[in-house]
Amino acid sequence: MFNFRNMSFKELMKVLGLGAVAFVLGVEWLNWLKRRLRDSHGPLKEVLFFPSPQVCVEHLFIHHKHFPCACPLPHGVETSFSRLLVHLLSARMSLDLCVFSFSHMELSRAILLLHKRGVVVRVVTDRDYMTITGSQIGALRKAGICVRHEMSSAVHMHHKFALVDGRKLITGSLNWTLTAVQSNKENVMVTEEPELVGPYQKEFQKLWEANDPANHKPQCTNGQLNIKTCKDR
Amino acid sequence: MFNFRNMSFKELMKVLGLGAVAFVLGVEWLNWLKRRLRDSHGPLKEVLFFPSPQVCVEHLFIHHKHFPCACPLPHGVETSFSRLLVHLLSARMSLDLCVFSFSHMELSRAILLLHKRGVVVRVVTDRDYMTITGSQIGALRKAGICVRHEMSSAVHMHHKFALVDGRKLITGSLNWTLTAVQSNKENVMVTEEPELVGPYQKEFQKLWEANDPANHKPQCTNGQLNIKTCKDR
Repeated sequence: MFNFRNMSFKELMKVLGLGAVAFVLGVEWLNWLKRRLRDSHGPLKEVLFFPSPQVCVEHLFIHHKHFPCACPLPHGVETSFSRLLVHLLSARMSLDLCVFSFSHMELSRAILLLHKRGVVVRVVTDRDYMTITGSQIGALRKAGICVRHEMSSAVHMHHKFALVDGRKLITGSLNWTLTAVQSNKENVMVTEEPELVGPYQKEFQKLWEANDPANHKPQCTNGQLNIKTCKDR
Repeated sequence: MFNFRNMSFKELMKVLGLGAVAFVLGVEWLNWLKRRLRDSHGPLKEVLFFPSPQVCVEHLFIHHKHFPCACPLPHGVETSFSRLLVHLLSARMSLDLCVFSFSHMELSRAILLLHKRGVVVRVVTDRDYMTITGSQIGALRKAGICVRHEMSSAVHMHHKFALVDGRKLITGSLNWTLTAVQSNKENVMVTEEPELVGPYQKEFQKLWEANDPANHKPQCTNGQLNIKTCKDR
């Protein structure tokens, strides 16, 4: 055993000093370990399957505790569609959306609400499907949301993914249509895994830049497609 | 400082014993830490974007070091499509495939090769799209691969995912068609993340059982759709 009584002052200070250093290093090591263990549990990973039963989602749009929704749909039920809305409406800074077909009214309402809240919304969509009956692309443009479309008519922009605040990826087989949500067998994955989010963010930026109307000549056959109705970012 | 010369044999054994225990515990701790750090890096996550340039993929089907492929396509080039093939052909036990539209010849060749190798292949597809021109579903059935289709004509089986050996998930926007692979803007994610693989495996099993022809009456309008050409598992 060490006998502190027999130690000189110099030796005592040396032992105490080494002890303090060991203590600090130990605490740092434990903190680092704690962080690594927490990270190993991993970021958000959620999988949603469709079709999704039709339920009331008004409470997701109107945050009022005693909001008396009188619609005949079931209330207080969580579904794949309500989870999708929750993830989209969690955007605080930006929403980058890359979607082939977009005609779902509630999803359009969510995007318009985000835009109204000051969230920077950018949309890349398919050239042909943006003009089909029921498409919500016109409504988004009218509200001043930046929309770009695939420039080539020979190619389909077939992605169906969204990036929330540049850190949450929503991707899958689901087009943003009522049939897809309420009838089809579809999947959507939601993740904050950086190794997955990163490549999709790069792809979005690539498509956004490649489809900048400023880099393309106006199309004679359908000139209005190239009109920019937003303050382009 | 400890002075071993002044120690009794008993004291010396005590110190050595404690030292040995501390050493073993230390080694065990380091091994545990190493495992946790490796796990925190996480399982496979790969993202592939399409369109994919057309290159020779013969070497993925014929494993011969000096295979002299004389085709005019570029050789020795890795693309999104070749990566997709590599992941599919990595199946050793099973391949569960859930795909809306399947007309790609090379992908069909890959599935037939897996079936020939003894890999248990199960396919769930869309009712309408299985009979379109160029569909490979007939070729798969003819070879004895189990194929089931969405039973309801009002619903589309719109998934595009595959499960390799029940532990690798391949999912995205890509239908298994030549246009999707070579022309469209598409994405495919490959992951072995159990939290993502698990739900897709459950969904496949659910669809597989729900579309068992044994549970459905033959369709008068198109009876041959319900013919089982495989030894159903």
